[in-house]
Amino acid sequence: MAPTIDLNSDLGESFGAWTMGDDAALLRVVSSANVACGFHAGDASTMLSVCREAAANGVTVGAHVSYRDLAGFGRRAMDVPPAELRDEVLYQLAALSGLTRVAGTAARYVKPHGALYNRIVHDERQANAVVDAVIAFDPSLALLGLAGSAVERAAGEAGLRFVREAFVDRGYRSDGTLVPRTEPGALLSDQAEIAARAVRMVTDGAVTAIDGEEVTVQVDSLCLHGDTPGAVAMALAVRAALAAADIGVEPFA
Amino acid sequence: MAPTIDLNSDLGESFGAWTMGDDAALLRVVSSANVACGFHAGDASTMLSVCREAAANGVTVGAHVSYRDLAGFGRRAMDVPPAELRDEVLYQLAALSGLTRVAGTAARYVKPHGALYNRIVHDERQANAVVDAVIAFDPSLALLGLAGSAVERAAGEAGLRFVREAFVDRGYRSDGTLVPRTEPGALLSDQAEIAARAVRMVTDGAVTAIDGEEVTVQVDSLCLHGDTPGAVAMALAVRAALAAADIGVEPFA
Amino acid sequence: MAPTIDLNSDLGESFGAWTMGDDAALLRVVSSANVACGFHAGDASTMLSVCREAAANGVTVGAHVSYRDLAGFGRRAMDVPPAELRDEVLYQLAALSGLTRVAGTAARYVKPHGALYNRIVHDERQANAVVDAVIAFDPSLALLGLAGSAVERAAGEAGLRFVREAFVDRGYRSDGTLVPRTEPGALLSDQAEIAARAVRMVTDGAVTAIDGEEVTVQVDSLCLHGDTPGAVAMALAVRAALAAADIGVEPFA
Amino acid sequence: MAPTIDLNSDLGESFGAWTMGDDAALLRVVSSANVACGFHAGDASTMLSVCREAAANGVTVGAHVSYRDLAGFGRRAMDVPPAELRDEVLYQLAALSGLTRVAGTAARYVKPHGALYNRIVHDERQANAVVDAVIAFDPSLALLGLAGSAVERAAGEAGLRFVREAFVDRGYRSDGTLVPRTEPGALLSDQAEIAARAVRMVTDGAVTAIDGEEVTVQVDSLCLHGDTPGAVAMALAVRAALAAADIGVEPFA
Repeated sequence: MAPTIDLNSDLGESFGAWTMGDDAALLRVVSSANVACGFHAGDASTMLSVCREAAANGVTVGAHVSYRDLAGFGRRAMDVPPAELRDEVLYQLAALSGLTRVAGTAARYVKPHGALYNRIVHDERQANAVVDAVIAFDPSLALLGLAGSAVERAAGEAGLRFVREAFVDRGYRSDGTLVPRTEPGALLSDQAEIAARAVRMVTDGAVTAIDGEEVTVQVDSLCLHGDTPGAVAMALAVRAALAAADIGVEPFA
Repeated sequence: MAPTIDLNSDLGESFGAWTMGDDAALLRVVSSANVACGFHAGDASTMLSVCREAAANGVTVGAHVSYRDLAGFGRRAMDVPPAELRDEVLYQLAALSGLTRVAGTAARYVKPHGALYNRIVHDERQANAVVDAVIAFDPSLALLGLAGSAVERAAGEAGLRFVREAFVDRGYRSDGTLVPRTEPGALLSDQAEIAARAVRMVTDGAVTAIDGEEVTVQVDSLCLHGDTPGAVAMALAVRAALAAADIGVEPFA
Repeated sequence: MAPTIDLNSDLGESFGAWTMGDDAALLRVVSSANVACGFHAGDASTMLSVCREAAANGVTVGAHVSYRDLAGFGRRAMDVPPAELRDEVLYQLAALSGLTRVAGTAARYVKPHGALYNRIVHDERQANAVVDAVIAFDPSLALLGLAGSAVERAAGEAGLRFVREAFVDRGYRSDGTLVPRTEPGALLSDQAEIAARAVRMVTDGAVTAIDGEEVTVQVDSLCLHGDTPGAVAMALAVRAALAAADIGVEPFA
Repeated sequence: MAPTIDLNSDLGESFGAWTMGDDAALLRVVSSANVACGFHAGDASTMLSVCREAAANGVTVGAHVSYRDLAGFGRRAMDVPPAELRDEVLYQLAALSGLTRVAGTAARYVKPHGALYNRIVHDERQANAVVDAVIAFDPSLALLGLAGSAVERAAGEAGLRFVREAFVDRGYRSDGTLVPRTEPGALLSDQAEIAARAVRMVTDGAVTAIDGEEVTVQVDSLCLHGDTPGAVAMALAVRAALAAADIGVEPFA
């Protein structure tokens, strides 16, 4: 049986008069759409419309929950007290979930966004708050995040399915962590190299770190960025390379 | 069989550090709680908490949907294009509905708030947008509003249950409309008079207009205001007067 | 002496992670920049940066004040009570004015944005509120708007300088009003035609209405739109046509 | 010559339909009003109105700048990049400063609010960002904060006047820092004790720490909280005790 992998991307990040990314194009490439829920991006009409298009394209929808920070696009870490964070995640999950139903589909997973994603790699209290929210809302949902993180442990303890993602265009260190964005080598841009990395991540479960060492990566889903110039071309290149390697693209949920 | 009536009040209108009204006290008086959904008031924790208390008190929960206007508390009419308004109402409905489920209850009706409530008394397009949202989300929900309004007609055409409310502390004109807030006689304040009016509205389906004429009112629910000083005392007086007249208080949904 | 005209455009309408328009390119074409003040668009860093670039390009800065409506980009008319509207305009004026000073320039005029611009064409109370705000803040500022409007009259009565603008890419009716955006002929797109209209507006004070009649336009400033594809090319074409007709481009303030 | 001290309090923290604190009462007690600027609280009308009342009461006005966080009332620390923070502080300073001018007074100092206040006790980068904003806007403004903090050092290096405040109702540790709010002894509530502490802080420059030791406090201003029940009574008690000890109340700026 041919191996398969999930491709996920952040979508629905327009807001009112402002557009971001090419949702329509990416929905023809990915298998899972992380849809913004109104706290860092995503007005109601954008959310509904991307959910409808996802349904039409057979793309699975997940809730891309965030800190409440439109002005900072959810990229500024916030010391939100855990009970408050849990409720804010619940609100977003509820809003997206209801809209997916109207759009003829369903929210099947949760992927924290931006600064919240990074914070719960190490912050146990916020990680537990996110897990608590998902459990309270629907324990059959999956949680998408970084392997080896605090949130993976919290999800495991709570009996929540955790889906590990890898980043095709980010540099890795030999300990398996990502090269911080402030350091050289954090972002790859060569399309062929990125496409080849994507294939190796799936077939070998490995990636070459910035110091040349081989690193094991556990990957259930590959993240494709959608908000940069060339994002669509990159996504298409990854998809083509996977096809050439006989790797199918299937949603994990 | 003893007659019954529903008592509804706007609740959950605190936001972050700011509180409004005495939700706990009113939940011991009313049978239906119009819970703010985050657009004019109501943060996630407030919403969850009031839904949990409503459930504990056997009070039915409805979605108090609004224009998106925290700074104006939803009291400023807005020319929101109908499709956008429909989606914004859907988002709020979805958010509240999901939170009620977490709180162990359910959203059973929709009551538009403030300027939106008043606008859809006469604005056919916005009235249709609200009805469209409710139909799309869950056609078994009831819609609470003013008798004889554009939104009552729109609900009727769409096959949506419409629940007519009367205001115990507002002056009526002889044509059955409310005395505008900018005119004398708009607001009653005498507790005994208001309590007696409430009883007459239920038993006789009538109210004395500002010019002394008797006016027919069709009433499925009485609205009690919660955000004024003395609101709780007034609500208790109405409830006591209804009890003295052998009128039960029961949610309409 | 060669005639001159002012060219104005809406700038600084990015917000956080979202960009809109090509501010840098337009600042090389226009003589007046209407800078968003944070209520419909424009975060603090965007505002400061566009003010600095305007100063560097010798472009005059004005406050592009709006209803408080980020989600609707200020395009939804709001029934804001006049005293509240006056204060909200004052806040925006104060914020932009302070930032211009930091940027080494000054705010020299006010141009209401979007739905507020259109509302005060006919709404006397909101028009007076805007004029009151400008008078209270700095009566030496000019107010930019539509000729023949309620706000022109209000400015005149208050002794405020009013600057009349014309739209190079909008259709006119024979009574001098704009063809509404919902009707055919509202928006012109032919670059040569638009450039020629711009020249005629300045040299003849006239424009051909949609029914073929000649209409007089009083014009102190021509508005160039910046947020559409092709906006920069159009602006350059207008500027080139004015130059070819020996019309200089100079700020009105 | 009789000694004098400044009394400051957070005012103007209402927002739209929500009120907080009793501004009118506190303005008869304090000498300096920290006025919210719209980012954690304070709509335009509230700001203008409290500035006018401050002017009428001879109370000095300062800008109570905050993280952009209405939902969290500025109480949630945020990792705002320094350049962005500087610009957000500038925006708030500009807005308040312009409104004070309209109200017939002036902003004479800056006091960071809530989580930002606490963050710049130790965060050098955010402390510098705040100082940079004040220097860029008006280097003659004073900066009000905690003695011994990162922001005091940053202000000193930049040549900005720093005003050290003490808290009359907070417990101190023997190293001079405040007992954290999560620990016992963080908040005092005995009116007589608090009033006596206020007097000792001014006359002796000392306070009794939670472990009984005497601690030196350098104090240019005493902070009175305004948003708790009993706040006004407490403020009056402190003011009366100061008067009884022949200590005058005078603004520091």
